[in-house]
Order: sequence, then structure tokens, then C-alpha cells
Amino acid sequence: MNKVSIITIGDELLIGQVIDTNSAWMAQELNKKGFSVIRRIAVGDNRAGILNALNEESAVADVILITGGLGPTADDITKPLLCEYFQGKLITNETALENVRNIFENIFKRPLTERNAAQAEVPDCCTVIQNKRGTAPGMIFEKNGKLFVSMPGVPHEMQGMMQNDVIPLLQKKFPAMAIEHRTLITFGIGESFLADLVQDFESKLPSHIKLAYLPHFGMVRLRLTAKSNDKIKLAQEINEQFDALKFVTKEFLITDADEPMEKIVAKHLLALGKTVSTAESCTGGYIAHLFTSMAGSSPYFKGGIVSYSNEAKQDILKVKKHTLEKEGAVSEATVVEMAAGALYALKTDYAIAVSGIMGPDGGTDEKPVGTVWIAVASKNKTVAKKFHFRFERKRNIELTAMNALNMLRALIVDKD
Amino acid sequence: MNKVSIITIGDELLIGQVIDTNSAWMAQELNKKGFSVIRRIAVGDNRAGILNALNEESAVADVILITGGLGPTADDITKPLLCEYFQGKLITNETALENVRNIFENIFKRPLTERNAAQAEVPDCCTVIQNKRGTAPGMIFEKNGKLFVSMPGVPHEMQGMMQNDVIPLLQKKFPAMAIEHRTLITFGIGESFLADLVQDFESKLPSHIKLAYLPHFGMVRLRLTAKSNDKIKLAQEINEQFDALKFVTKEFLITDADEPMEKIVAKHLLALGKTVSTAESCTGGYIAHLFTSMAGSSPYFKGGIVSYSNEAKQDILKVKKHTLEKEGAVSEATVVEMAAGALYALKTDYAIAVSGIMGPDGGTDEKPVGTVWIAVASKNKTVAKKFHFRFERKRNIELTAMNALNMLRALIVDKD
Repeated sequence: MNKVSIITIGDELLIGQVIDTNSAWMAQELNKKGFSVIRRIAVGDNRAGILNALNEESAVADVILITGGLGPTADDITKPLLCEYFQGKLITNETALENVRNIFENIFKRPLTERNAAQAEVPDCCTVIQNKRGTAPGMIFEKNGKLFVSMPGVPHEMQGMMQNDVIPLLQKKFPAMAIEHRTLITFGIGESFLADLVQDFESKLPSHIKLAYLPHFGMVRLRLTAKSNDKIKLAQEINEQFDALKFVTKEFLITDADEPMEKIVAKHLLALGKTVSTAESCTGGYIAHLFTSMAGSSPYFKGGIVSYSNEAKQDILKVKKHTLEKEGAVSEATVVEMAAGALYALKTDYAIAVSGIMGPDGGTDEKPVGTVWIAVASKNKTVAKKFHFRFERKRNIELTAMNALNMLRALIVDKD
Repeated sequence: MNKVSIITIGDELLIGQVIDTNSAWMAQELNKKGFSVIRRIAVGDNRAGILNALNEESAVADVILITGGLGPTADDITKPLLCEYFQGKLITNETALENVRNIFENIFKRPLTERNAAQAEVPDCCTVIQNKRGTAPGMIFEKNGKLFVSMPGVPHEMQGMMQNDVIPLLQKKFPAMAIEHRTLITFGIGESFLADLVQDFESKLPSHIKLAYLPHFGMVRLRLTAKSNDKIKLAQEINEQFDALKFVTKEFLITDADEPMEKIVAKHLLALGKTVSTAESCTGGYIAHLFTSMAGSSPYFKGGIVSYSNEAKQDILKVKKHTLEKEGAVSEATVVEMAAGALYALKTDYAIAVSGIMGPDGGTDEKPVGTVWIAVASKNKTVAKKFHFRFERKRNIELTAMNALNMLRALIVDKD
């Protein structure tokens, strides 16, 4: 009684002009609350496709969540179509109209156009969800015991409605089975070797607890999921299994929480009251961006130098001209000097330095595309390592960042 | 005769632990070649869900592209299920086995395990696509005139197969209708105001040419799509309509290509042989990362300073202590000095400087969360502007970057 299907509507999804992040976010939130998303489907802004999806999804799911196609422009046909599907007629919702008017007059400082006033029209057979973050209201319909919810495709508008209205409604209507997840992350071991390592453990799992492997840039996340009606027993059981899994994987385990690498490093730094800086050539600011994407990063992240040119490496990080000429920008000597330069310039306890050739051009026989030197340093110790990544530019940047962060994590854990 | 449906398989897609970027990429590539993706569906690693999806999608599409569930672990059930669905039996493919063995012995430097050798097994009723980037082979099946292609879910493995094998095969089997897209990008005008602006233009479009609006961080992409059997006439027609659309939107138009903001700025810099540097506080390296994500950025991007702490602003960018104390880190005076500091430290023609409060914490009554100052500077001119973004941290960072890049674009175009 808690099966959810997600329909996302929009031609842009079918020609690949945007990546659908909405359904992943929705699935995550629903899952935490014990609702199972059983399918996700994307269809274009076209009548037959939308009607077909409404029929198919309501045949297999109890709740059908719909996003997109509610904008003010001619390609947005979701609202009139839902009105027809549920045999209603469009009427103006006064609260929604008030909201649209307020946004135009007080935020956009422009008069309300007819086109936008029409966003406050809703089918008379729905329950309206007011949009506190935008102009298009959400709509809830019921038909044959199935619940249909239509929301805007703009992520933060949809998210507001999900959190304030939709999830509380679902929790009231569908008492969910208890669900528990535990995730740990390994680094430096491939999926299949890991599978061999945990084979015995996995074969002994009870049938209501499942193990999944999620490889991601040098890491593998191992996730245990347990479902049951007995909430208290479930937590005990999954904790015991999780402890066993941690024991089996301990050699490669970097965290027993589901959190990104930069968060793992940040937690270590915060716990010790230490600071870090970055000296980035080939990752071009990406490692600094990872640190500062997290709220509350100023206590441990003091700053970074993106020394993309050799001049910047010399002028700001004080890499020796001689080193660059003799060893080249992609070398152990250069990254070691870059790390020292960052420690000094930004007065931090730790520093990360990277220099490499991310491709597609710039490789040589001696240093092919994908060659990367990474150094991590504290005041007492510097560790440098050479890597060779074999992928395209974005993936090479991501892999460099993950390996650099992991090297820093290891250095911190070693207490150097 | 060219309808494609995409099925992505994996529990991780339904609990939201990963974002599906594969189907967007596939849709984009297929679309360029004139194939219409009509639906995308994600199902879990479960028998009933996969079989149901195979039946439903083959009822509406000519080509069913399947990714995921081909890994070596127990939760990967796609291959045996396809074998059953197409009534084959598993046999070892010698070329695929050779490939797996080569990867293990020469790249991983580990002996081939039984688990991985099994990746070379394929149903005897399929045509094998060799995987040049990984261990799991792809498989092509035909049933009732429909084509089914199963590929690994690892993005770069799937991409290799699509480009080298699948798309050429589809082009041979299904002569496609000609399709043309033209995209322009506007900045600084909302979707509904833009819709009013182009209303007359849109209402006069012939029925085989469609206009779509794609809002994205302060920008709106306007995309014209035309389909026809007459390829030559089609290109003429869409070019004429596109010229008309450019004329109508000229006040807000920033490019007449489908390219990201950083690419637009990069093209201007390259054309003039000028260089840029960044001084980032609140965006924490994200703007530098955008520049360096693009191949070939070294001629115009020399580097950047992520001055997250006030100390870094003073020490490296030479922002005056007095300015920081009197005006604060988020102020016009500070970003103007930061921009000057970047121009000087990195010896560039242009600089971008940003400082703001990205949230969720750190706001005050006077400077609430979302307050951002941006400065762009050349040797002759500095422009600074205050913004107030009202979203969550990641969106505020993205909006700050887009507005900063747009301000630089405007400064360059003004030839200052």
C-alpha cells in the first residue's frame, strides 16, 4: 500500500537538454519515509504520451507524483490535460492569484500579465497546494483510490511542496512499512573484488535485508536495506549486520555513513580543529568548490590558489622556475612545492596540490593524457603520488579530486 | 519508424542514490541524428519490473535501449532475464573473455576471478557489442521487428558503445526523418515576459516547427525544432525562423548557440586574445572550475584565488584591512579591491571578483543570506553590482557564477 510512481513531463527531458534531478531527489525523500518508488517515467509535452503514462502508472502504483509542464507558456499542457482526465473545469483559485500578484508586484516589480494570472487557474476537482516559492500551484486529485499529485518542474518549488504538503499527506494516508538503510563507503577496491570479499557475508543475509553496490569514482558505496513491520527489531537486526559488514570491509572502509568524500575529510578536520588549503592546477578550482559547497566550511577551509599557468605557480605558490623547467609542471617536485606554497601562503595545517594533464589534448609520450601528480602535506610530512586516469576530461577531474581528498584523509588519520 | 524508448535499470535510481545522467546523454545523441526518444523509464533490479518495462516499451517504440544491471554482483539480474525473455541460453563469448582477461591481467594486475570471467557469458540469441572501455559486453536482440540493445550503466562504457556501435546500426536500420534544432540564449528576462515578447512570432510558426522555453539560472534557452522529410528545405526554413526569433529577442540575447555561459565568455576572450583571472569568496572556486572544465582553457584562463578567509583576501589579493573592517567582506569596496588584486597577482586583462553570503547561515538583518557583491574589471574599468538571491546554497552559488560571467561578458562586449 505504499507504491509510488513518478512521472516527469517535458520535451527537454527527451531530447536530453536537461538532466532530471527531480526524480532522484523525490525518490530519496520518499525512501527515507518508507515509501517505495517502483518506477520513474519521463514523457514529452504531448497529449497521448501524458494520458498513456497516467493510465499505466495508476495501474501499478498507489501514488502518482507528476512534475513539469505547469509553466505559463504554450508548450505547457499538463494542467488542461489533468483537468480533462479528471473531468473538471478550470476555475481561478483566489489564494493562488493573490500569490502570483504578490510575486509580480513586490518581487519582480512588474504588472501582472494575463498569461501569469492564468497560472492561478486550477481544475475544480482538485485540492490546491499553494506554491510558496513560485507562481504555479500544485494539484491533488483522487481517482479509484489512487492519489495523483501534480507539481511544478522547478526543483526548489517542487521540493517545497513535497516537504510541506505532499509527504505529510502521504504519511497520513498510507501507513508505511518500516525501512532502514545503512551505507558505508570503501575506497581503492573494485566492485568485483569487493563482491568476492563480502560473498560469505552476503550469502548469509536474511531475505528481508538486501545489499547493493554503488561504484562512484574510485569509491564503492555498500548499502544495506531492510524492510519489516517490526520497526524496533528491524533497527537491531540491520545494526548487527552493518557491524559485520564493516568488519569484513575494514581494510578499505573510509566511512560508515552515506556522505561525500569532501564531507568525510571535513569531519576529520573539524574534529581536530585543523585547517586546509588547496593549490590546484589541473582540477582548476574543483577541489576548493567541493569544500565550499558544504555549509559551514569556513572554520577549516581557508582558501586556495588555482595556479593554472606556470606564472601563477611561480608568483603565488613560489614554485621554483628551475623546478618547472627541469621537471615540468606535471611532476613530483612541482606538486610538492605547490603544496608547500599553499601551506605558507594560506597559513593552514594541511594542503592539497594537484597538477596533471586532463585531456583531450596536451599529452606526450612520456606524460600521456591522464597523468596526474598529487601531493598532500602537513607541517611535518608530505606525501606525493602519481596517477594515470584513462577517461575523458570531466571524469579525470573528478577522479583526481577524489584521490587527492582520499590522500589527505589518510594523512590526517595517520596524525602527521 | 524511428521511435526510441530508454529503460534504465537499477535500485539505486529508485531510491535516488544516483542521478540518471545516462538517459539525458543518450537522448541528446539520438536526437542529433533524427531519432525521437518518446519515453524514458527507470525500474529497479527486479524481475517483474524489468519484464513489464520490456513489454510496455516494445509496444510503443521501435528501438528499446537498456542500460544497467550488467555488473558482476548478485543484484545485477539484467543479463539472465534478457536471456530468458529472448529464449536463449548463456554461452561464453571468446572475444569478450579475452577482453576481461586482458583488463584484469594488464590493467588491474590481478588474476581473473570466476565472477568476472562470467561477465563474458552472453545469450546465444544476441549479437555481442564488445566493450572497449570495461568488462561487461553489450547485447543486441531482435523480436517482432523491434530492436533491443542492452548496455552497461557505467556512463563512459555506454557512451563508447552508443557512438561506435549502436548509433551507426540504428542509422543503417532506420532511415530517419530530418530534424533541425536552433537554440539561442537570453539572460535577464523571465520566462513569462519572454513568452509575451515572442507571442506574435510563436503564433505564426508553421506546425512542423516548435518553440520550447528552457529556463536555467537567470538564462532562458529558446529552442526551435523542425522536422520534415525535405532536408534542404528544412534547413532554409528553420534558419529564416531563427533569424526572426533572434531579431525579436535581441535586447536579451547573449548567444545564438546552445552553449554554457562559460563557453560564451571563453569565445569572446579567445577572439580578442585576452586573459581572465578570478577572485572568489562565496563561490569558492566554482567560477574557476567552470572555466577549466572546458578543454583548451589555458590560453585565456591564467588562474584564480579562492580567498575564503579574510586573511587570504588581505595577504594574497591585497584587500585593505581597513576596507574589511569598515565595509565588511561582503561589500562593494571589498569586491572592487579583490578584482584589482586578481588583475595584479595573476597579470590578466580581466578579472571577476565575488563575495557574498550563500547560506543557510551567516546572514544578518542588514546583509541577509543571498546577498552577493560582484565586480568585474579590466585595466580601464570596474563595474560592481549587488544581488540578492533567495534560494538554497548550491543554487545561490550557481546564480552568482552565472551573473558574474554575464557581467564579464557585458564588459568585454563593451570593449572596456
